[in-house]
Amino acid sequence: MTLSMFQASVPRFIHLLGNLSAILDKAQAHAEMKKLAPDALTAYRLYPDMLPFTRQVQIACDTAKGAAARLAGVDIPKHEDTEKTLEELKERIAKTVAFLQTIQPAQVDGTEDKSIVLKIGGHELPFTGLSYLLEFATPNFFFHVTTAYAMLRHNGVEIGKRDYLGMKS
Amino acid sequence: MTLSMFQASVPRFIHLLGNLSAILDKAQAHAEMKKLAPDALTAYRLYPDMLPFTRQVQIACDTAKGAAARLAGVDIPKHEDTEKTLEELKERIAKTVAFLQTIQPAQVDGTEDKSIVLKIGGHELPFTGLSYLLEFATPNFFFHVTTAYAMLRHNGVEIGKRDYLGMKS
Repeated sequence: MTLSMFQASVPRFIHLLGNLSAILDKAQAHAEMKKLAPDALTAYRLYPDMLPFTRQVQIACDTAKGAAARLAGVDIPKHEDTEKTLEELKERIAKTVAFLQTIQPAQVDGTEDKSIVLKIGGHELPFTGLSYLLEFATPNFFFHVTTAYAMLRHNGVEIGKRDYLGMKS
Repeated sequence: MTLSMFQASVPRFIHLLGNLSAILDKAQAHAEMKKLAPDALTAYRLYPDMLPFTRQVQIACDTAKGAAARLAGVDIPKHEDTEKTLEELKERIAKTVAFLQTIQPAQVDGTEDKSIVLKIGGHELPFTGLSYLLEFATPNFFFHVTTAYAMLRHNGVEIGKRDYLGMKS
């Protein structure tokens, strides 16, 4: 087997998003047990000028679907940022995963040299498929999944790195 | 250009560890400006039963050097976990990067099917080179770098995701 653009992206995103969804289940159980206010976890910020929990999950999802769609050359599905509850965030993850599951290896493999231009804050960021995946999409994806995890951990949700990694044993 | 095991590991680890070192510089400047106790940041934990900041940086380093060494088939350099200050953690990162820079592409490329067995907590975890890199080393590496970042951000150090990504513009 040879490492490919598909293997390094779509199945990894699907796996980690599944782990994140299971982590949200634990957060939900924690919130119910502690009788937390509905937005105590979802609106939580690690620092006042940092994005809240909800946005971390949304951006993790958007990074995954944006990367898969751009590499595969298909339209990026539009998901409005309307989620307010953990349950709604689980649905956001589920529809992201459903989209990722439509992407076939042949659509993504061989896209190393493909030109990808991101527009961020009025600036154009030019990438190749390879640099986009390794230098932008991958570190961003793990950043937002881990930040969401850290926020829950900081708030006492009983999760561990095995939940993040999705290790069974 | 074709994605390879080397490209997906060693240069990415070197880049992120460089970004983390620059983030430690900002943490140091913050600690001096605020006259923080010497261990206020390094001993900080996001939750009492979570590993402190120092361990997050050490494990990020160990994940990178372990992955590079195991894939390349060379001995993993032993680095004792003695760091207590941000300056010492920067040295830990620097010696990790110095080791990573000795690893050549030909040592890592083509290791997708190589058998790699980790021993964690008395259990043996069997991987191929590919599954080890994508399912274990990469998510662990980003987890600990991001957690270190989140701890500093939570403590008011003025850093942003551009510091984590190492974006210049």
